[in-house]
Amino acid sequence: MSFIATPLSMHFEDALPLQGGASIHHYDLAYETYGELNAERSNAVLVCHALNASHHVAGVYADQPKSEGWWDNMIGPGKPVDTNRFFVIGVNNLGSCFGSTGPMHENPDTGRVYGADFPVVTVEDWVDAQARLLDRLGITRLAAVLGGSLGGMQALCWSLRHPERLAHAVVVASAPNLNAENIAFNEVARRAIVTDPDFHGGNFYDHGVVPRRGLRIARMIGHITYLSDDVMNQKFGRQLRDGLELKYSTQDIEFEIESYLRYQGDKFSDYFDANTYLLITRALDYFDPARAHAGNLTQALAASQAKYLLVSFTTDWRFAPARSREIVKSLLENQRRVSYAEIDAPHGHDAFLLDDPRYLGVMRSYFESIAKEIA
Amino acid sequence: MSFIATPLSMHFEDALPLQGGASIHHYDLAYETYGELNAERSNAVLVCHALNASHHVAGVYADQPKSEGWWDNMIGPGKPVDTNRFFVIGVNNLGSCFGSTGPMHENPDTGRVYGADFPVVTVEDWVDAQARLLDRLGITRLAAVLGGSLGGMQALCWSLRHPERLAHAVVVASAPNLNAENIAFNEVARRAIVTDPDFHGGNFYDHGVVPRRGLRIARMIGHITYLSDDVMNQKFGRQLRDGLELKYSTQDIEFEIESYLRYQGDKFSDYFDANTYLLITRALDYFDPARAHAGNLTQALAASQAKYLLVSFTTDWRFAPARSREIVKSLLENQRRVSYAEIDAPHGHDAFLLDDPRYLGVMRSYFESIAKEIA
Repeated sequence: MSFIATPLSMHFEDALPLQGGASIHHYDLAYETYGELNAERSNAVLVCHALNASHHVAGVYADQPKSEGWWDNMIGPGKPVDTNRFFVIGVNNLGSCFGSTGPMHENPDTGRVYGADFPVVTVEDWVDAQARLLDRLGITRLAAVLGGSLGGMQALCWSLRHPERLAHAVVVASAPNLNAENIAFNEVARRAIVTDPDFHGGNFYDHGVVPRRGLRIARMIGHITYLSDDVMNQKFGRQLRDGLELKYSTQDIEFEIESYLRYQGDKFSDYFDANTYLLITRALDYFDPARAHAGNLTQALAASQAKYLLVSFTTDWRFAPARSREIVKSLLENQRRVSYAEIDAPHGHDAFLLDDPRYLGVMRSYFESIAKEIA
Repeated sequence: MSFIATPLSMHFEDALPLQGGASIHHYDLAYETYGELNAERSNAVLVCHALNASHHVAGVYADQPKSEGWWDNMIGPGKPVDTNRFFVIGVNNLGSCFGSTGPMHENPDTGRVYGADFPVVTVEDWVDAQARLLDRLGITRLAAVLGGSLGGMQALCWSLRHPERLAHAVVVASAPNLNAENIAFNEVARRAIVTDPDFHGGNFYDHGVVPRRGLRIARMIGHITYLSDDVMNQKFGRQLRDGLELKYSTQDIEFEIESYLRYQGDKFSDYFDANTYLLITRALDYFDPARAHAGNLTQALAASQAKYLLVSFTTDWRFAPARSREIVKSLLENQRRVSYAEIDAPHGHDAFLLDDPRYLGVMRSYFESIAKEIA
């Protein structure tokens, strides 16, 4: 069993200006911390989460032995990101449905649930909100910002937006922006949600319903893209769910892969918020630090001062190694210090959450070197 | 402008037994023919269609100058499959929504529209129905059966099910079966349709509605998988639809790729039948000649007597070259004559419908050699 984690919350009164022009005020950020902040306040590591995750990064909640945080294999006492050495902070992002202020909460300006009125938030906005949380925690400078996938985008963004506030950015299974295919998958998922009659333009809370059909489809699409072709063939192949005989039906479950996807879709629709799904996929779509530099990533990364570790996985077709290499190349063109590990792993995008010894070994070594810098 | 094509229809009274145990009787097959059947009746080429296509393979309809058949670049006078030499037959498959008997037609047993009661049809069933059409046309043996994607599966199936009735099977951008990822995409599309409240369990015709939401999602998913990542980046990239400014909206169209996908989805939902979509994707899922041989494709292909041309495209991730190579390998293990062309094309699965000179050149050469055998 892992250590006990305790969810915390910080309230913010002041308006946070957002990239989209709106602002949000009177909001809460859910967070957790593991380990101890040292006297020099120099050992803090911020962990940024991806689509379906939260501030609950590691440990378990008291009396919930199966509630391991989503990166519990990576973070904890004696783990690659060792909480005996680092003070680790997990923050739930604005717009999420896991504790921080989101579309299911009351809009202080209207007294009604935000719903569709929750403002569009970007990776930059999240980073700014995280920076304010660090201010309140008395942390001026981070030893590292760490994240995978959308979390890696936040780590990269941190190094550009607040370059003086971090020593290292650890960007795992990520990309400098989404490509057309990624946006396309996000858009299909969003259309499935938005066109579900139970979505009610985003104000389904008022109707006592949830757009489950759309959420199920969104999650099924997601799962296909998280897995590699190979691992899907290995885990499911063409295996039938029931015995050897075909049912010859278009609607009954015939193949194991169908059963798996329907189960994942059902489960997701029980707990994930539809507006949050729209917001988070849009934050993914919008992230593109090179945009302000006419598409020149090298110019965009000139602002950085951090040292970097980039990690990618060979079978990840959602955030392919080539995308990480773009970042590496642009950092090198800026004479930044960057380490890059391309892990030969069969699991596709999901690999960044799994127990691959080479991957965990790279992370351990890198964080050991950070720990030495601090000591 | 291309030549004038004339749609034809053949009625069949007798029951066609289906793989699923049911049968279908009193049905029609829509078809077209181009060129002339020679005196020896030896120059017939059957063209099998894929998901969103029909018997209208080539030529245009009188007074509809933009109604080119779906493989008009491949088939016609002087084209790779030269209708000055070959008698080409296009057949619309059972269950389709383009003319042959399908779920939108009357069930002769009940006097009501089939709807959800239309029996599940398989690639084998389609091939058997095509064979009956050939019987009626007085064609005992085909010079070739030709198809791409799902059409290629039919060509392969022909060579196993009626091996004495064809000299050549031309299997383009196809596979010996769908892998788990392909089934997964089909299943998501089907769930989007089936869970659309306007689907009414498949009997939406009685309600005067169409499950457009589901059809749109299905088509959007399809389009993503037909294109390669590269061509999608090249055609759309991260280009915004309107100017340079972001709108910061989760529901408005922001990127060109979103606009393209929504347009394709809308258009498709105007004309494609939801039950047909379920039936055709299921036929794809079920096709697996190796299944009756405990997964041994080489044993399955031992029944074949034809000569083969296999063609695949390097960027096709829906029916990847590796899948065509499996067929080639198993044919070679059976000492069958097989030619194989792996075309370096950027367009993904769609490439089999496009004007790639190397691809069209390979097809032309192969059909010239068939023509010489006949002459």
